[in-house]
Amino acid sequence: MSKKYKVNFQPSGSRGEIEENKTLLEAAQGLGVDLESICGGKGTCGKCKVRVEEGYFEKDAMDSRMSHLSELSEVEKKFIKSEEGPQMRLACAATVHGDVKLFVPEKSRAGKQIVRKAAKDITIPIDPSVRKYFIEMEPPTLHDLSKGDYERIRELLKEQYGLEGIIIDYVVQKDLQDALRKGEWKCTVTVREGREIIKVEPGFIENTYGIAIDVGTTTVAAYLCDLVTGKVLNTESMMNPQVPYGEDVMSRITYAMMNSDGLETMQKAIIGGLNEIIDKITSEIKIDGSDGGHQIVDMTVVFNTAMHHIFLGFNPVYIGRSPFIPAVQDPMDIKARDINININPASYVHVLPIEAGFVGADNVGVLIAEEPYNVDDMVLIIDIGTNGELLLGNRNGVYSTSCATGPAFEGAQIKFGMRAAPGAIETVEIDPDTKEPRYKVIGKADWHTHIEKIDAKGICGSAIIDVIAEMFKAGIIDKSGKIVKDLDTPRVRLDADGKPEYVLAWADETSIGADITVTQGDVRALQLAKGALYAGAKLMMKKLGITTLDRVVLAGAFGSHIDTRSALTLGMFPDCDIEKVYAVGNAAGDGAIMTLLSRAKRLEAKEKARWVNFVEIAIEPEFEKEFMMAMHIPHMKDNFPNLKNMLEKSNAQVTVKG
Amino acid sequence: MSKKYKVNFQPSGSRGEIEENKTLLEAAQGLGVDLESICGGKGTCGKCKVRVEEGYFEKDAMDSRMSHLSELSEVEKKFIKSEEGPQMRLACAATVHGDVKLFVPEKSRAGKQIVRKAAKDITIPIDPSVRKYFIEMEPPTLHDLSKGDYERIRELLKEQYGLEGIIIDYVVQKDLQDALRKGEWKCTVTVREGREIIKVEPGFIENTYGIAIDVGTTTVAAYLCDLVTGKVLNTESMMNPQVPYGEDVMSRITYAMMNSDGLETMQKAIIGGLNEIIDKITSEIKIDGSDGGHQIVDMTVVFNTAMHHIFLGFNPVYIGRSPFIPAVQDPMDIKARDINININPASYVHVLPIEAGFVGADNVGVLIAEEPYNVDDMVLIIDIGTNGELLLGNRNGVYSTSCATGPAFEGAQIKFGMRAAPGAIETVEIDPDTKEPRYKVIGKADWHTHIEKIDAKGICGSAIIDVIAEMFKAGIIDKSGKIVKDLDTPRVRLDADGKPEYVLAWADETSIGADITVTQGDVRALQLAKGALYAGAKLMMKKLGITTLDRVVLAGAFGSHIDTRSALTLGMFPDCDIEKVYAVGNAAGDGAIMTLLSRAKRLEAKEKARWVNFVEIAIEPEFEKEFMMAMHIPHMKDNFPNLKNMLEKSNAQVTVKG
Repeated sequence: MSKKYKVNFQPSGSRGEIEENKTLLEAAQGLGVDLESICGGKGTCGKCKVRVEEGYFEKDAMDSRMSHLSELSEVEKKFIKSEEGPQMRLACAATVHGDVKLFVPEKSRAGKQIVRKAAKDITIPIDPSVRKYFIEMEPPTLHDLSKGDYERIRELLKEQYGLEGIIIDYVVQKDLQDALRKGEWKCTVTVREGREIIKVEPGFIENTYGIAIDVGTTTVAAYLCDLVTGKVLNTESMMNPQVPYGEDVMSRITYAMMNSDGLETMQKAIIGGLNEIIDKITSEIKIDGSDGGHQIVDMTVVFNTAMHHIFLGFNPVYIGRSPFIPAVQDPMDIKARDINININPASYVHVLPIEAGFVGADNVGVLIAEEPYNVDDMVLIIDIGTNGELLLGNRNGVYSTSCATGPAFEGAQIKFGMRAAPGAIETVEIDPDTKEPRYKVIGKADWHTHIEKIDAKGICGSAIIDVIAEMFKAGIIDKSGKIVKDLDTPRVRLDADGKPEYVLAWADETSIGADITVTQGDVRALQLAKGALYAGAKLMMKKLGITTLDRVVLAGAFGSHIDTRSALTLGMFPDCDIEKVYAVGNAAGDGAIMTLLSRAKRLEAKEKARWVNFVEIAIEPEFEKEFMMAMHIPHMKDNFPNLKNMLEKSNAQVTVKG
Repeated sequence: MSKKYKVNFQPSGSRGEIEENKTLLEAAQGLGVDLESICGGKGTCGKCKVRVEEGYFEKDAMDSRMSHLSELSEVEKKFIKSEEGPQMRLACAATVHGDVKLFVPEKSRAGKQIVRKAAKDITIPIDPSVRKYFIEMEPPTLHDLSKGDYERIRELLKEQYGLEGIIIDYVVQKDLQDALRKGEWKCTVTVREGREIIKVEPGFIENTYGIAIDVGTTTVAAYLCDLVTGKVLNTESMMNPQVPYGEDVMSRITYAMMNSDGLETMQKAIIGGLNEIIDKITSEIKIDGSDGGHQIVDMTVVFNTAMHHIFLGFNPVYIGRSPFIPAVQDPMDIKARDINININPASYVHVLPIEAGFVGADNVGVLIAEEPYNVDDMVLIIDIGTNGELLLGNRNGVYSTSCATGPAFEGAQIKFGMRAAPGAIETVEIDPDTKEPRYKVIGKADWHTHIEKIDAKGICGSAIIDVIAEMFKAGIIDKSGKIVKDLDTPRVRLDADGKPEYVLAWADETSIGADITVTQGDVRALQLAKGALYAGAKLMMKKLGITTLDRVVLAGAFGSHIDTRSALTLGMFPDCDIEKVYAVGNAAGDGAIMTLLSRAKRLEAKEKARWVNFVEIAIEPEFEKEFMMAMHIPHMKDNFPNLKNMLEKSNAQVTVKG
């Protein structure tokens, strides 16, 4: 019997006994300590560094650390930098010859943590669906004919990494023979879900890349992630190449209906677009001029239900008409090559589940990024894109719905509406006494003045909210949304059709040679959009039996740009303490990234998509009434104590300023 | 509590009680009776016919059968023909109102039996990997939005057929919406391994087709099977389109090595060939001019290791040189679309496992068709194609090996050798006294005479065996294979090189204007080929510690054509009672068919391929010695008691005739 020594791993506190001459890695694995070892103990990855805490101060010489561990080996000298100090060792190389206490540094832990910076931090352990494993084998001989190349690899994956029931993709099997021989019987095997071999590369390859994609109706965003560290390495965005076939969801469904190859055309457009974005985002990780996309071994994607169907080549017609039944709701895993996405061909595109009807996978992304199901406070999450989706609830239950806001929030039904681009008015204030506005334009740092030519072109989506809220506060529109005509200002006037409008910028301040105005029609369009959101939220509150909200979360790029005070003033959502209203950016994209980095999150998405209670508000008997009421701009006395409080403070400030 | 009645199903003898008003199908399912019901009790397939044995003779009127069962329904009248008699009922329609005894006819049983006609019958229950299920659903409404089309189907497959954990192929998911609506919410779902949906068709579709393929080095054979009845509906064969790239395995491996696109060219050739054969074999099952191949929902394929690698696009170079390691040995399931095989695109091509080195999936086919592992007697199975593979053993263990016989058995290294085509000499007898031969030619009914011009062109493979065995028996060659020169016959003469030859047909009997001869070189080529087989068998017998064989099975088309007596005379295999030497035809193809019809056989193939002990005879130290000895043509006194016995009988007959 060989001697045994005590080992103790920090910070987990795992302790046990191990036979003399065994490696620290064997000790860690035996004790279930979370210690990275990509090469499986071959001394080729240098990932299993541990710091010796006790066990080398026995003698007083520097090298006395050898007393309880083997001498520093050549392979350790290669991987351990001098500045890491003499205590650092490679667990796979150092063998035990006495009691030791060790510390596993953060970066040596396999289950690393990712911290998402937001109003509330969400921490998820990194546990991607796809991982790489290094394998080294003896060259086969004539006296060992019982296995093929693949069976040898399968056996080693089981022996060294405990992977059972391994299968291999046919296209990878094709590369296997040459990869093994090119790497002189060493190779790196990429495995999905601990089960399917989806890539084989000669030699030791550490980098493991994944991509998360959010396909919006208007914009596509992509995030290149390192599946080992969890870091977002690169981001890219582009306009959805389907825009020429229709600005919004319904017009694209119509395009698919009216043109025999409409669906195919739009599917090709988005897939071609994604392949472009993949090519761009991987420009820095191309190896020897290879196809960068093939470096990507996993992909997740979110989108609304219509974009989901068109991307997948499913007829979107049935989700465009009652009873709005989708082809599939569950998550899907599709071989990249089956859908012509140019990543590693044997990899899968993981499509997040959809909730129901128009509440798509993007809203599931928001759901798992914000996790309302893990909190006690009642939170309303509004994701405003070309459509508006709402989530409301807490750990006891969450309702979801989709609101036909139309594209008003994106400036599309607004006379001088435009995208958020240089020249767009982005912030507006109106003096309640003089009714004179001041505004900021994208690309200019300061408020406009008459001294400098400001070259305004139009009003961006978020500024529409601002200007109409300001018009209301200044008494230019009443709470029914009507522009008040008998005000003592040249800025309120009648347009060519005899309808009132408000001049936000005189022609000489613009680059378009015309006055930029806010029309009665603009106000009505915004009222319809915000009314739909408000009514949806109100109906869900009734279902939950609540009358107040604890928090309002604004998701999506639009949500990040709007002034929360203006939004509350207009009544885009029910009354809430303005301090508890905040934007979280592209939460749908965050959700896509999370499912790329964490299998638990992927499972959570699947489960929570079904756990959420979808409400088809259009068929709720009370919707019509709520919607009519929601069209009004809130009067500060109408059940809006928080708003009232906010407006009074704000008026007080104006007064002070004035 | 409702009343209960006794039901008794024959011939299984299952009996139990069932509540009044339940159907006979429910009773059968509750009792686990094997009763077909493709439509799941919808009354649309008419497959669940049962005959009432007792329970309707209670009253004496014809209609008294109603007494213990419900009245004959409209749907039953539709499916039951008058000649089937009044006792026949549809189990899904007839409800129980009294004790009944029923008989389930053979064709109403789901697990039908297939009987293979051969020397020994092998019976396997039909249990294919792929089955069809009929589904009917309520159209979805606005009040049931919790499921997509796919989730509805998945739920019904579970409820009605007990299928759990269903998944769906992405390309099938694309067809799902339109199929459901075209079939007015009725569809037929094709499921593989009770798990993956690989096809969805509108309405009720009963036909379920599969194809089994044997890719030989020279010939490809295909069998179209009905996966419900187990019947072979059609067969087709063609020359392997890879023949232009090399007649035998090694020359094709060389072609792949010497040409940068050689592998791809040959893979395309065989896949193109299979698609042609699929198109031909399905010509009668095309529906409305559709692609017949898409009617095929499952496929199995066998081949030797080199054909296996080239078909799959695996580099065959490594199996052509020591240590002969294949890319993979296990069975593979490859999506048809991934390998461009034109069957239903979501279906799989099931490639049988290979044993080792050159002992390929075709020999696994032979193994599971012949089942030596289920018998006590010691059987030698010889599969002669372009290569020769041997299996030897019984339930206690089976050895396998591959022998480099070369193409002599196919007539390729024989001066006047040719394929078995019209004009080929196929049977030969030589008079031991006069040394005069008589022979039969393919396409002519009788032995040749000088009266009728016989137009011989050459000698086919099986006749080579015959003629050399006859030459030996007539004393024209000695047991070392040397042609005896000093015989008193003009038929033995010297050729242009001064080497002896035997004239089998004079020029005036031929269509080629020259004498057809058997040269000393021909005899040597055959000796090498048969010597390899014999030595392989002998070495395996030594390993098993046996000196005699109980049976010799000749598999392959060639094995069906050769004269077993001639083969024994030449010593193609060790001594065996000639009554126990028989041919079984294309056993490799039989194995492919069996794995198409039976999941158990598929599993058996996987297990037995690994259970068999492969011997690489080339590295056995005794091989050289055995091979040299095996070159001799057996002398009847040399340990060949069965052969001696046979030859003595045969000489006696000749004597009588003479």
